[in-house]
Amino acid sequence: MKSDLKHFEDFKVGEVISLAAYSVTRDAIIAFAQEFDPQDFHLDEAAAKSSVLGGLAASGWHVSAILMRMIVDSWLNKTESMGSNHIQEMRWLKPVFPGDILSGSLTIEAARVSSKRPEMGIFGVRVKLFDQHQIQKTEMVATIFMKVLWPC
Amino acid sequence: MKSDLKHFEDFKVGEVISLAAYSVTRDAIIAFAQEFDPQDFHLDEAAAKSSVLGGLAASGWHVSAILMRMIVDSWLNKTESMGSNHIQEMRWLKPVFPGDILSGSLTIEAARVSSKRPEMGIFGVRVKLFDQHQIQKTEMVATIFMKVLWPC
Repeated sequence: MKSDLKHFEDFKVGEVISLAAYSVTRDAIIAFAQEFDPQDFHLDEAAAKSSVLGGLAASGWHVSAILMRMIVDSWLNKTESMGSNHIQEMRWLKPVFPGDILSGSLTIEAARVSSKRPEMGIFGVRVKLFDQHQIQKTEMVATIFMKVLWPC
Repeated sequence: MKSDLKHFEDFKVGEVISLAAYSVTRDAIIAFAQEFDPQDFHLDEAAAKSSVLGGLAASGWHVSAILMRMIVDSWLNKTESMGSNHIQEMRWLKPVFPGDILSGSLTIEAARVSSKRPEMGIFGVRVKLFDQHQIQKTEMVATIFMKVLWPC
């Protein structure tokens, strides 16, 4: 059917996938925070200035959601992705500020077929995001499931 | 100033904080997925039916963002929270479907003052979310920073 979509077998350990850039706006930071993380330092410039973040900064969960969007756009939507059930680690290394442009890469660090479900491949991936000054903002280690083309 | 807000010293290891219920709607699931996780099984009923999820289900990142909102509403907004930089683990154990009502608890599993920054306390917390049928949907282990009232 969707024969143009890639499968588990199309990717190898060590492969690196570039993630297209994503611009983070002040409005988007505030909108996300209002819905999901209404703490002063994600909502209010003055309060944020005197906080550990040093200025209005995106919720870490917003950064994580953006990271997901970047993975979907640059990789998963071209594959038979089967989702994920596990984030092994998420580090928000530096605050993400309005105007930041995030880019980065995803590295496939492990790959195996599920022992219980031979139609499902399991990737271990590491994702790093950087800003426009090449400062690393975020690092994630996670599991991604993908359909196996020829289960055996 | 904000003397009604709680500090690091107000909480002890072993303390359990109940998280008020949060209803997950179909519209919210689709809106979040359109912005951050546009994969078929989070957007389209028919595609989701034949996926591993078994039906239209929330993005794991949406569930995580909801979890954050529940923590803010039931705990952090009554404290001198200083944010977080680290999620040690996030497990999406079961899909979250439209109409699910999430509730749960946060347990403080560790507490210490930062050795570098005596004004900052560090909690290790574990959060579990359940649906209206008491089925566990999500579990998270994370770090939370909170202001110390009397640094020494």
